[in-house]
Amino acid sequence: MNDDATARMCDRIARTANQAALPLRTMPGGERTALLDAIADALEGAEQSILDANGRDLDAGQDLTAAMRDRLMLTSERVQRMADAVRAIARQPDPVGRTLEGRVLANGIRLEKRRVPIGVLLVIYESRPNVTSDAAALCIRSGNAVVLKGGSEAMHSNRAIVEAVRRPLEDAGVGDAVGFVDTPDRTAVTSLVRMNGIVDLVIPRGGPGLIRAVTESATIPVVKHDAGLCHLYIDRHIEGLEEVATAIAVNAKTQRPGVCNAIETILVHRDVAERMVPRVVDALKQRGVDVRGDAQVCALTGSVTATDADWDTEYLDLIVSVAVADSLEAACEHIRIHGSQHTECIVTSSIGAADRFTALVDSANVMVNCSTRFADGGEYGLGAEIGISTDKLHARGPMGAEDLTTFQWVLRGSGQVRE
Amino acid sequence: MNDDATARMCDRIARTANQAALPLRTMPGGERTALLDAIADALEGAEQSILDANGRDLDAGQDLTAAMRDRLMLTSERVQRMADAVRAIARQPDPVGRTLEGRVLANGIRLEKRRVPIGVLLVIYESRPNVTSDAAALCIRSGNAVVLKGGSEAMHSNRAIVEAVRRPLEDAGVGDAVGFVDTPDRTAVTSLVRMNGIVDLVIPRGGPGLIRAVTESATIPVVKHDAGLCHLYIDRHIEGLEEVATAIAVNAKTQRPGVCNAIETILVHRDVAERMVPRVVDALKQRGVDVRGDAQVCALTGSVTATDADWDTEYLDLIVSVAVADSLEAACEHIRIHGSQHTECIVTSSIGAADRFTALVDSANVMVNCSTRFADGGEYGLGAEIGISTDKLHARGPMGAEDLTTFQWVLRGSGQVRE
Repeated sequence: MNDDATARMCDRIARTANQAALPLRTMPGGERTALLDAIADALEGAEQSILDANGRDLDAGQDLTAAMRDRLMLTSERVQRMADAVRAIARQPDPVGRTLEGRVLANGIRLEKRRVPIGVLLVIYESRPNVTSDAAALCIRSGNAVVLKGGSEAMHSNRAIVEAVRRPLEDAGVGDAVGFVDTPDRTAVTSLVRMNGIVDLVIPRGGPGLIRAVTESATIPVVKHDAGLCHLYIDRHIEGLEEVATAIAVNAKTQRPGVCNAIETILVHRDVAERMVPRVVDALKQRGVDVRGDAQVCALTGSVTATDADWDTEYLDLIVSVAVADSLEAACEHIRIHGSQHTECIVTSSIGAADRFTALVDSANVMVNCSTRFADGGEYGLGAEIGISTDKLHARGPMGAEDLTTFQWVLRGSGQVRE
Repeated sequence: MNDDATARMCDRIARTANQAALPLRTMPGGERTALLDAIADALEGAEQSILDANGRDLDAGQDLTAAMRDRLMLTSERVQRMADAVRAIARQPDPVGRTLEGRVLANGIRLEKRRVPIGVLLVIYESRPNVTSDAAALCIRSGNAVVLKGGSEAMHSNRAIVEAVRRPLEDAGVGDAVGFVDTPDRTAVTSLVRMNGIVDLVIPRGGPGLIRAVTESATIPVVKHDAGLCHLYIDRHIEGLEEVATAIAVNAKTQRPGVCNAIETILVHRDVAERMVPRVVDALKQRGVDVRGDAQVCALTGSVTATDADWDTEYLDLIVSVAVADSLEAACEHIRIHGSQHTECIVTSSIGAADRFTALVDSANVMVNCSTRFADGGEYGLGAEIGISTDKLHARGPMGAEDLTTFQWVLRGSGQVRE
């Protein structure tokens, strides 16, 4: 397809999604719940065709790394998990219509601030095919139409999943509410993110290249799901928490190193460096973690010396950089310069230190004496998440169905006019 | 100044504002209240120098229209009103630190979602100099640093106001928290709206040219304060509300025609067109309103025929377009095509019609039997507003100090790690 044909296709998909947004907006929550249950059934019914399509993607993706192939690969069990996830989203409370504020003004007008769907969302993602059904289900739960643009390496799988998802929607006359951009063409993205008035929001989930391309081109609002360069700071008030600090370091680094809420850097207050650095570094090395330290850490543990680049690197791997901080403020300044405002943790017994750290660290999630790995919509009780927003506007941190709504001010009067 | 010098100046102002954001973020609300009171005093104290500066702007602005000169002009009374507005903002509740949600998770971790300042805001505006002190005060109330970029026609006035505002801030060591881009150079805007990581949000308030320039160039989040093309729909269920409909039409059109929540178009259900169109049009014409109608309206009232462009025009003047709608749905479709999603009004006695209109109309504010002119932060009890957001994300409709905050998830545990 040439660029013009791609642009025309994107325009058509976005406009039909926009048309379908209206019936979805006025559809009662119970009907949307029934649609979600029907989508789960349809995914189960389409298992074989989804697995066949996935086989074609895997055949075409011989050059992918083992980790990428694992993210791409579907099994009977994984398709079942996709259907289960849609059923779980169907059981979540419906955010649409909820009154956020309500009062009667002095002039007798009743004022209500009510949740309403945003309209048409564009979700751009990479690799894992289950995002296709997750994103579609979250958008339907929140009354939105969605345009999906998945990674080219999962094109066949995504197409088969969308076919299954759309079947019950078509039966209900809202098939176009889930649009699918069926081209690997990268110009599709730049075309879609400039459709002001047709597409209301783009959520890019992926690597720095995708995030940069969307941010640079977009004229519609963006909520980014970007990198997580998370820090653990071990404070000088550590009496009785030596084991806790070590356990959190190990958990936050090794429990699942490839995710955004794993830590990449550990900062230790200088007053407890001699006591805590060897202890934490040994525990990490025992779990196979490659430790890179500043001069003091290297002197204490004989680790590899960290380069300047290390402090700015999201390893997503069993690697950690460790530095000694002269003070809590110095640690916060390090986090301000090198962090990504995603998730930071302090281990301390001091209320004052915990409050100071929380005030100084401008991150979406701040953990006091618990692992950064808890920064997750499921753990927070928000239900399934469309991702973790690294933006500060609209949604911050884990982003669930409720964050896929906006609100409307509704005023009911009896003829009031303004003096 | 050449473009490079402008870019360097913007970079310096934004970076110093970013540095000043940190002490402001951790400053207790009471200290920020005291700063606001001191700013109000400083404005009063600087009255003469502000009026002198304003005189220079008025001298330079001989070519401005009478309306623009009126918006630009300051008097002793208007400077007093600016100081009073800052004192009113000082009395508003402090949004920072408020807990939006809080609970204990099953694993014993205490979860809190707390309001925190956004960081550094960029406010771009035109004409009226009082926006300078209003915007600065709202940002300080919400714990944010701000970079102000006013219109070139008010440059001397804005400079004098900023000088007064900054004096108490400098005494408190946070003078750079109110940055001022002291150049009429338009490239300053394109430079500032690309400072990701330094500036967190841009709020453009102004004409379509400014909004387009910001939307096209920005890589940082934007909350637009764009046009209001607002509609009044008079439903067929109008028994007993004939006078209400007429009074709302007159109030929404004529009470202050130059503002964004005034109506530009009236739609009347065909079943009541013969009864209501002449009545409403006569009342408007009596107030000097120029009425432009579709074929049926012209036949009923002998008005001027509206052109296609009329339905898409925000007159901001004593002009109104009037059309007959075949149904409530047709009226909503007209609003969908021609409206700006700002504020719409229905006059009806029917609960069903009111609910259907509210569901179908995707606007920030929906009025049932009361004037569109109530779409205002002061009327809603939100305190002073930085403007009216025409975006759907983060803030929608009247935008006050609370909307100038984001939130942070704070988790406090006792050593929990994730299994």
